[in-house]
Amino acid sequence: MGQVITFGEVLMRISPRGKKKFIQSNMVEFFFGGTELNVGISIANFGGKVKHISVVSDDFIGETAIAYINKFGVSTSSIAFSKRPLGVYFLEIGAVMRPSAISYNRSHSSFSEIKPHMVNWEKALRKGEWFHWTGITPALSQEAFNILKEGLTLAREKGMTVSTDPTYRSGLWKYGKDPKEALAELISLSTVFIGGINEINEVLGTNYSYSNEDFIAASTDLMEKFPSIEKVFDKIRTSLNSSWHKIRARMWNGKEFRETEDLDITHVVDRIGTGDAFAAGLIYGLQNYDDYKAMEFGSAACALKHTYEGDVNLATVKDVTAILEGNISGRLNR
Amino acid sequence: MGQVITFGEVLMRISPRGKKKFIQSNMVEFFFGGTELNVGISIANFGGKVKHISVVSDDFIGETAIAYINKFGVSTSSIAFSKRPLGVYFLEIGAVMRPSAISYNRSHSSFSEIKPHMVNWEKALRKGEWFHWTGITPALSQEAFNILKEGLTLAREKGMTVSTDPTYRSGLWKYGKDPKEALAELISLSTVFIGGINEINEVLGTNYSYSNEDFIAASTDLMEKFPSIEKVFDKIRTSLNSSWHKIRARMWNGKEFRETEDLDITHVVDRIGTGDAFAAGLIYGLQNYDDYKAMEFGSAACALKHTYEGDVNLATVKDVTAILEGNISGRLNR
Amino acid sequence: MGQVITFGEVLMRISPRGKKKFIQSNMVEFFFGGTELNVGISIANFGGKVKHISVVSDDFIGETAIAYINKFGVSTSSIAFSKRPLGVYFLEIGAVMRPSAISYNRSHSSFSEIKPHMVNWEKALRKGEWFHWTGITPALSQEAFNILKEGLTLAREKGMTVSTDPTYRSGLWKYGKDPKEALAELISLSTVFIGGINEINEVLGTNYSYSNEDFIAASTDLMEKFPSIEKVFDKIRTSLNSSWHKIRARMWNGKEFRETEDLDITHVVDRIGTGDAFAAGLIYGLQNYDDYKAMEFGSAACALKHTYEGDVNLATVKDVTAILEGNISGRLNR
Amino acid sequence: MGQVITFGEVLMRISPRGKKKFIQSNMVEFFFGGTELNVGISIANFGGKVKHISVVSDDFIGETAIAYINKFGVSTSSIAFSKRPLGVYFLEIGAVMRPSAISYNRSHSSFSEIKPHMVNWEKALRKGEWFHWTGITPALSQEAFNILKEGLTLAREKGMTVSTDPTYRSGLWKYGKDPKEALAELISLSTVFIGGINEINEVLGTNYSYSNEDFIAASTDLMEKFPSIEKVFDKIRTSLNSSWHKIRARMWNGKEFRETEDLDITHVVDRIGTGDAFAAGLIYGLQNYDDYKAMEFGSAACALKHTYEGDVNLATVKDVTAILEGNISGRLNR
Amino acid sequence: MGQVITFGEVLMRISPRGKKKFIQSNMVEFFFGGTELNVGISIANFGGKVKHISVVSDDFIGETAIAYINKFGVSTSSIAFSKRPLGVYFLEIGAVMRPSAISYNRSHSSFSEIKPHMVNWEKALRKGEWFHWTGITPALSQEAFNILKEGLTLAREKGMTVSTDPTYRSGLWKYGKDPKEALAELISLSTVFIGGINEINEVLGTNYSYSNEDFIAASTDLMEKFPSIEKVFDKIRTSLNSSWHKIRARMWNGKEFRETEDLDITHVVDRIGTGDAFAAGLIYGLQNYDDYKAMEFGSAACALKHTYEGDVNLATVKDVTAILEGNISGRLNR
Amino acid sequence: MGQVITFGEVLMRISPRGKKKFIQSNMVEFFFGGTELNVGISIANFGGKVKHISVVSDDFIGETAIAYINKFGVSTSSIAFSKRPLGVYFLEIGAVMRPSAISYNRSHSSFSEIKPHMVNWEKALRKGEWFHWTGITPALSQEAFNILKEGLTLAREKGMTVSTDPTYRSGLWKYGKDPKEALAELISLSTVFIGGINEINEVLGTNYSYSNEDFIAASTDLMEKFPSIEKVFDKIRTSLNSSWHKIRARMWNGKEFRETEDLDITHVVDRIGTGDAFAAGLIYGLQNYDDYKAMEFGSAACALKHTYEGDVNLATVKDVTAILEGNISGRLNR
Repeated sequence: MGQVITFGEVLMRISPRGKKKFIQSNMVEFFFGGTELNVGISIANFGGKVKHISVVSDDFIGETAIAYINKFGVSTSSIAFSKRPLGVYFLEIGAVMRPSAISYNRSHSSFSEIKPHMVNWEKALRKGEWFHWTGITPALSQEAFNILKEGLTLAREKGMTVSTDPTYRSGLWKYGKDPKEALAELISLSTVFIGGINEINEVLGTNYSYSNEDFIAASTDLMEKFPSIEKVFDKIRTSLNSSWHKIRARMWNGKEFRETEDLDITHVVDRIGTGDAFAAGLIYGLQNYDDYKAMEFGSAACALKHTYEGDVNLATVKDVTAILEGNISGRLNR
Repeated sequence: MGQVITFGEVLMRISPRGKKKFIQSNMVEFFFGGTELNVGISIANFGGKVKHISVVSDDFIGETAIAYINKFGVSTSSIAFSKRPLGVYFLEIGAVMRPSAISYNRSHSSFSEIKPHMVNWEKALRKGEWFHWTGITPALSQEAFNILKEGLTLAREKGMTVSTDPTYRSGLWKYGKDPKEALAELISLSTVFIGGINEINEVLGTNYSYSNEDFIAASTDLMEKFPSIEKVFDKIRTSLNSSWHKIRARMWNGKEFRETEDLDITHVVDRIGTGDAFAAGLIYGLQNYDDYKAMEFGSAACALKHTYEGDVNLATVKDVTAILEGNISGRLNR
Repeated sequence: MGQVITFGEVLMRISPRGKKKFIQSNMVEFFFGGTELNVGISIANFGGKVKHISVVSDDFIGETAIAYINKFGVSTSSIAFSKRPLGVYFLEIGAVMRPSAISYNRSHSSFSEIKPHMVNWEKALRKGEWFHWTGITPALSQEAFNILKEGLTLAREKGMTVSTDPTYRSGLWKYGKDPKEALAELISLSTVFIGGINEINEVLGTNYSYSNEDFIAASTDLMEKFPSIEKVFDKIRTSLNSSWHKIRARMWNGKEFRETEDLDITHVVDRIGTGDAFAAGLIYGLQNYDDYKAMEFGSAACALKHTYEGDVNLATVKDVTAILEGNISGRLNR
Repeated sequence: MGQVITFGEVLMRISPRGKKKFIQSNMVEFFFGGTELNVGISIANFGGKVKHISVVSDDFIGETAIAYINKFGVSTSSIAFSKRPLGVYFLEIGAVMRPSAISYNRSHSSFSEIKPHMVNWEKALRKGEWFHWTGITPALSQEAFNILKEGLTLAREKGMTVSTDPTYRSGLWKYGKDPKEALAELISLSTVFIGGINEINEVLGTNYSYSNEDFIAASTDLMEKFPSIEKVFDKIRTSLNSSWHKIRARMWNGKEFRETEDLDITHVVDRIGTGDAFAAGLIYGLQNYDDYKAMEFGSAACALKHTYEGDVNLATVKDVTAILEGNISGRLNR
Repeated sequence: MGQVITFGEVLMRISPRGKKKFIQSNMVEFFFGGTELNVGISIANFGGKVKHISVVSDDFIGETAIAYINKFGVSTSSIAFSKRPLGVYFLEIGAVMRPSAISYNRSHSSFSEIKPHMVNWEKALRKGEWFHWTGITPALSQEAFNILKEGLTLAREKGMTVSTDPTYRSGLWKYGKDPKEALAELISLSTVFIGGINEINEVLGTNYSYSNEDFIAASTDLMEKFPSIEKVFDKIRTSLNSSWHKIRARMWNGKEFRETEDLDITHVVDRIGTGDAFAAGLIYGLQNYDDYKAMEFGSAACALKHTYEGDVNLATVKDVTAILEGNISGRLNR
Repeated sequence: MGQVITFGEVLMRISPRGKKKFIQSNMVEFFFGGTELNVGISIANFGGKVKHISVVSDDFIGETAIAYINKFGVSTSSIAFSKRPLGVYFLEIGAVMRPSAISYNRSHSSFSEIKPHMVNWEKALRKGEWFHWTGITPALSQEAFNILKEGLTLAREKGMTVSTDPTYRSGLWKYGKDPKEALAELISLSTVFIGGINEINEVLGTNYSYSNEDFIAASTDLMEKFPSIEKVFDKIRTSLNSSWHKIRARMWNGKEFRETEDLDITHVVDRIGTGDAFAAGLIYGLQNYDDYKAMEFGSAACALKHTYEGDVNLATVKDVTAILEGNISGRLNR
C-alpha cells in the first residue's frame, strides 16, 4: 500500500464548546483541519502512509499545526513556512433546526499566497502512489491552481492514481479564473471522481436529477468527457435536522451500479469533515478492497466521523469494519 | 418600530456544564436571565429597540449583570442599584426522563425589595411603544405589584400596547395579596394576552379543556371580562421526555382562530426561556407582521431557543425566517 | 432497613469530556467507581445505610477515593490502605454507532493484591443485614476470592440476605481458578440472583435462549442447583446504538413470572454503571417493597442512571418514584 | 483527643478561576466555607474528630454542602434543613496591589434564620470536648446569638474547653443587639481567646497599640475582665501586597509571652480562611502539645493555608510538622 | 466631562490559559483588544463617556466584538461592518525569563482595509471633546492614515483635545509611507504627547538618553517642532523579568518636571494593555485633575492593569484612588 | 549532528490545574513524560534528531502516548507495544512552603515488564551517535537493566557518546539487584556524567561535600574509577521555597573547572523535568559548542523549563540563546 499524497490548506478551527455561540463564553477550543488534510489524517489512522503538502505560518501557530499533523504520523517533511498567517475559521455548532455557522479568515493566508518555490514536486512525490485533491485548492489563487496542476501532471506521468473531490464552493473563486474551466483542466488529470450530481452538473453544465438512473447517465457522460476518470462515487446525505442525518453511497465504475443501505446517525456530534471521511475511507478501500467494499468502507467511515469532535476522522480500520459487520449497537469495548 | 419596555427581575443563573449535578463537580457556568429580560434581549437580537427596567445589586455582581444586558444592546439606563443582593437561581439540566431541577435564592433580592423611588416611569417610558409584563413580577412583593401597576397605568395613558404572559407560579405569592385578584387588576390594563387554558382558568376561575373549541370559548370569555384584551396567543408543548419536545401555537383574535404545525425538537439543548422566546417572537412579529405570521414567527423562535444554552434566545430574524421558509435540515451556513 | 454491605474494588475512572478521545485533548475528568461501590452509593442515595469494604492506596489518590465515598454518606470505616496503587480505568465515551472504549490498569492494584489481615469480617458485618457481591471480585485474585468467600460464609451464618450479580468477564480470570467452579461456590452462599440467561448458562453450562419461557426454565434450573437462591431478576437492554437504548426487566421467584414495560432512553448520557443501578434499585426495593415493585423500582433506577454522568446513580427515591408514577415527560422541577 | 464542635454558617463560595473578574468569563468554581466550618474541616484534616452544627437549604445545594462536609469526615448528623436558601458569597481574587473583593448574599439565609428547634444541644454536644465559636455567628441574628449562647452555656456546664475568634465585622450587626455587649456575654463563657489588639480593643473599649508590651497588657486586662479566659493567641500578618504576606504569632497565657518567627509567603495562592487555619492549628495543637508548640503549629498551618485554593486548609499534621522542622524549601515529595 | 473618541482596530486575542503554549492544549480563551479600544474601555470603566470608531467583520465574530464593547458601555454606534475578517492575534503568556510571544493575523483585516465611506467624522465627533490616537493606526494602510488624518483635522477644528501615543512598531509600516513623516503630520494635529525618549527620538531623529535631563530637553525640542503639543508624559518600566516589573512616570508640561515613585508589581498577571491603561488613566486624570495628579492616576492605573487578565484595564476610579492613597497591601474588600 | 537515542519509560502524568489537590476538583490534565523522554523531546525542540525507545500499552492510552511523542518529531519507530498498561503518575503541584507531591503507579507497567524481544538494538541504533540513559531505567526490573546494558554495550562498540544522569531513587530498586553495583556496570559504559556530589558519593561510596574543591576531587575520583568518563557536569539548585529557585552549574572535564552564574527563577511554574532540561541542553550543547558553552546552554535551558507547564522543555535554541545573551527581562516578542 503506497504513500498517499494530499495537497491543500491547513486551517485552524476555533469553536466554542458544546452548542455555545462565541457571544456566550470566552472559552473556545481549536483543532486543525482542511479538506485534503482531513483525508490524509484519516487514511493515516487507517494505517496508510500519507504525506501532506502545504504552507503554514512561520510562528508558533504554524509549529502547532505541524505538531498536530505529526501527531497522526502524517509526514510533514514537504510543508513549507511562510511569513503570512495560517488560515483560520470560526465555527459555531448547531443543533436540531439551528444550522452550524462558519466564518472564514483565509483569503490572504500562508497557503493562499503559496509561491512556486515552496513545493518541490519531484521530491514530494518520490514515494507517492496516490494523489488526492479537492476543488477548494484551485479556488484559492492562481498560484495554488498552477502548483496543483503541476503536481497532478507529474503524478500522472509517474502513473499515480489521482482522486478528486471537486467540491465547488462559489464564495471562494475570486482571482478571476473560470471555475468550470479550471476544474475541467484538473479533472482531466484524475482517475477517481468522488462527487455527486451537483458536482457533475457544475462541471459538465448539465442538469441531471438525483435519481439513480440520472446518476448512471451523468457518470457515463462525465467519463466520456474526461476519459481518464474510471470510477464515480457519490455519498448521499439525508438530514432530518442538524442533529439527525442518514448516509448512504452509490457508485458507477463504467460497468456496475451499486448502492449501500442508509446508516442512521441519530445523534450527530460533529458533521465537519464527514465528506472527507468518506473520501478517505474510499481511497483506503480502493487500495485494499474491491470497488463495492471500498464504497461500503467509505460510507461507514463517513457515518462514524459524525461521532467524533473536530474535523478529522479518528476511526481505525477495526472501528469501521465492526460497523460493516453489523455491530452498530454501540456495545461497550472492554 | 418603537421601543419595547420590559420590567422585571434580573436573576443570575448558575449551572453545572452538560448534564452534571452540583454534587459532581465544582466547575459551573453563570448566565443572567429573568422572564421579562429574556423577552427583552430576544427582541433586541431581532433588531428591536428595548429598554429593561429593574433593580440590581450595587456590587461587582450587579455590574456584571448590567454588562451582560448591555452586551445585547438593551438599554440599562433605567436600572437602579440596591444594597440587597441580586437574585440567584441554581439549575441542574435534566435528560430523557430526568427533569431539570431549580433552586431559587430570590426572596429578599434587590428586585423583590424594590422601592418606589427606584423607578421613574415618566422618564422610563418616554420612548416606549410596547410594555411587556409577566405574572412573576406581581408575585414577588407588594411594592413590585404597586410599581408594575403604576407603570401599566401610565403606559395605557400613553396609548402603548401592553402584552402579558400572566404565568401563575403558586410558590411565589407569599406577601398576602390574592393572586387571582392581583392578576385581574393588571390584565385589565393589558391588550395582548400570551397564555393558554391554564392561565385563563386561573384568572377566570373556569375549567376549560385543552381542545381548540374550548380555547376559543375561553378566549372569548376572557375578552369579555377584560375588554382591553384584543388577542390571545397560546403556545403548546408536547414532551416525549426532557430531551425531545414538540411546539406549536394557536390564536384567537376575536375574529379568527389559527394554529401552526408542530415543530419537532428532537434534541433539546436548554429549555429555559423558551416560553419567553415565544413571547418575544410574537411581540416582534406583531410589530412587523400580521397576527398569524406573528404567531408563526413566535412559534419558530420558541423552537429555535431550545437549541441555545442559557436563558436567552440568540436567534436573529434571519435565523427564524429560515425556519419559516422550511429550512429545517440544519444545512451548514458557510 | 438494615445496613447493606458491599465489598469490591474502588477504581478511578479517567475520561475526556463529552465525546472526545484521549488523543484530542489533555483535559480529562475523574470519577470513582467499581461495580459493588456503585451499588452501595446508589443505595445510600436512596437513603439506605451502606458500608463499603475495600482496599485503597495509601496516598493522596486513596484519600481522594475515601473522600469521594464519604461524600455520599457510605461508611468507609472498614476500608484498608495498601502500598499498592489504586486501580485505574480510562474511558472514551462513544456515540451512535461508535462504542465506548475502556482501558484498564488494575491487575496489580491495591484491591487485587488484598491480604487477609486487611478485612476484619466480624467487625465489618456487625450491623450488616444484606451483603452484595459481584463476579468481578473473585476474578481478580485467589486472595480476593478467599476473602469474599469468608465474608459470605459469615454473612450467611448471621442470616444476612446475600445478593449477587455474577457477571462473568473472561478477561479477568487469570490467577488459575476455574470461573465456573469459583462462581458456583459463591452462588451457593447467595439468596438473590441478579442476572440473565448469559450468566445462568455460564454457571450451569446450559444453553437457554432469551425467551421468557426459557428464562423461567433456566431460573428454575438454577434454583434447583443452588437451593439458597430464592429469586432471579433479569434486566434486558435493547440498543438501537450507543446513544439510544431501551430497558426492561423480568423476574422469577419460584412462583411468579413478571416483566416490566420498556423504558425508552432516547438520549443516553452515560451507560457506565447502569447495571449496578438496577441492582441497587432492586436491593433497595426488596428491602422496602414486594418483588414486583422492587423490580419496577430497579428498572426505573437503571433507566434514570443513563442520564447521569459518571459511574454512580445519583437518583433519589423521589426521582425514581416519579417515573414509576408515569412522570417521564421531564417537566421542570421548580 | 475528644470531639471538637463547631457551630456556624455554611456558605457557598463562587469565584472565577485564576485572577479573573466575573465580568470577564462565565466559567466559575464553587467551594463551601464559613469561618467555623473552615476550622472544623482543618482539624478533621489533622485527624481530629469534628462535628459541625449548622442549617442548610433543603434542596440540591444543601445536599451538595452536606456532601462537601462529609467528604472531609466531619460529622453532619446535627445539621438541620430549612426552606431558606443557603448563604452565598462571590469572590474575585486579587493580585499585587489589587485587593480581593467579596459580595455577600447571606442576610436571609438558612442559617441566619435559624430557629431554636433546629439545634438539640444536648444531643449535639454528647461527645464534645471542645467548642469553637467566632464573632460572625452572633452578628447574624438574635436567634443565632441566643442559640450560640445556649450552646456555650451547656458546653461550660459539661466542662468543655471553649475557644473564640471574636472577629468583629461591623457590616453584619444589623438586628439591633450591641456588638460589644453581645460579644462580652459570649466571651465570658470562653477559655481560649484567639485574637489580637483590634479584637481586644473592640471588646474592652481600650486603645492598646500593636507592640508586644501592649499585647501583654491588653491580654492581662482581658483576662481580668473575663476570668474564664486562660490564654490569648494573636496571629500577625504583614502584607507587602495581595500576593506577598508574612505571618507570625504571639501568645500570653498569664505567665509567659512567646512569639514565633515570620513565615514568608512569597506567592499567595488564596488567603481566604487563613485565620481559620491558624485557629484550627492552634486548637489541634492545644489538644496535643504545649502552648508554645501549639502556637507554632497554628502559625505554620496558617502559612500553609495560603498555598491552597478554597476556604479550607487541606494540610495534614505531617505537612505542618515538616515546616516546623525547617523543610520550607518545597522539595518534591516523591 | 465630555465624550472621548477612540479610533482604531479591534483585534480578537486568542491565548491558552495560564502559562501554556498553543502546542500543549486545545483549550484557549479569547478577549478583544486593540490599543485605542483598550484606552476607550478603560476610560469607560472610570465612568467616562466613550465612543469607539472602527470596522469589524460582518459575521458572528464581528457581532461578538460589538457585544464585547457594548458590555463596557462604550458606544459602538459608529462602528462599520465589512466583508473582511476581524484581525486576530495569538498570544502565549511568558513567565520569569520567558517572554510572552505574539503572532498577528491582521494585515488584510476589516480595519486595515477600511474605506472612506465607513467613517462619517461629522457624525462621529458630534459630542466629542477628546480624541485619542496611536501610532498603530497610520501604520496599517494608506486609507487608515488618510481617515485618521481627516478625523484629527476635524477634531482640531472643533477645538477638541487630541492625545497621541505615537508608538512606532517597525514591523507594521508596509504600505510605503515613511513612518517618521506620517507621524509628524499627525503629531502636528495633537496636543498631548504620551511617549518617552524612544518615541521622541524616532519622530525627531534625535538621540536623547533616558536621563531626566534629556527627557526635559527632548520634550522641549518636541514642543518646539510641534507647537500644538502642550504636555509630554512618559511611563517608565523596569523589568526584573516577565513576572516582575516596576512602573513610574514623569512629565514635562513646558513649565514643570515631575516624576512619580516606582510601583512594584511583584507578580505580573498580564502585561498586555498596560501602556494603554497609563494613557487611559492619564486622559481621565487630565479631564478631572491637575497634570501631576493625572500622571499619578495614570501610573497607578497602569500598575493595576498588570493584575487583570486580558487587554483591558478593569479598574474603577475607586480602585485607582485606593492605591494613590497608599492602600497597596491588598487588604480584602468585604 | 547525529541522532540521539533515549531509552526509558513513558509515563502518563495526571495533575489538577493550578495549585489544586485531587480532592478539590474532578477536572485534571494529562501530559506524558519520563526522564529520558523529556531529554529526547527537549533535544528535538532544539532541532536535534532523536529516537526514543520504549514500550507502551497496546490500547488508546498507548496510542495517545505515541501521538504525543510524534508531535515533537521524535521518532517512535522503535517503540514496542505490550499488553501491560502504561505507567501513570499523579502530581499535585505545590506552592511556597508546600512541596509538590507525587504518587506513582508504574511497578507493573508496560515498560517495567519489558521483554528482550521488544528491543532490536541493531536496528534501533543504526543512525545513533549519542545514547542517553538515567538511573531510573536499571532500577525498574532485571530485564530493564539487562536490555539497557545490552544497548550501551552495542553503543560503545559503535563508538557512540554515552551520557548518563545516574539519579539514584532508592524507592525504585526492588527486584534484588544492588543499585551501586548495577550503576557501576553501566557507568563504566558511559562517557559523560551528568550528576553531582550525591550521585558520585552514592556510586563511589564516598562522602564528598558540596564545595567546589570537593566537586573537583570527587569528579577526579570518579574518572579514575570509571576511565570512560571524560566530563562531569553538575547542576545546583538553591530553593527559597517551592515557588522560587535559583539554578547554576559547574563542570570538571579533567582539565578545567568552570561554573556559571545563578539564574534567578522568581516565579516557578513547573519544576518537573528541569533536571532533564539541563541534560538535554548540555547534550545539545556538547554536540554543537565547547564544554563551557554547552554547560551554560544547559543551565539556561534548565532555568527556562521552570516556566513551562508539563514535563517537557518547550524552549528552542533561539529561546535559550536569548537568555545567554542577557535578555532576561521578559520583553514581549512581537
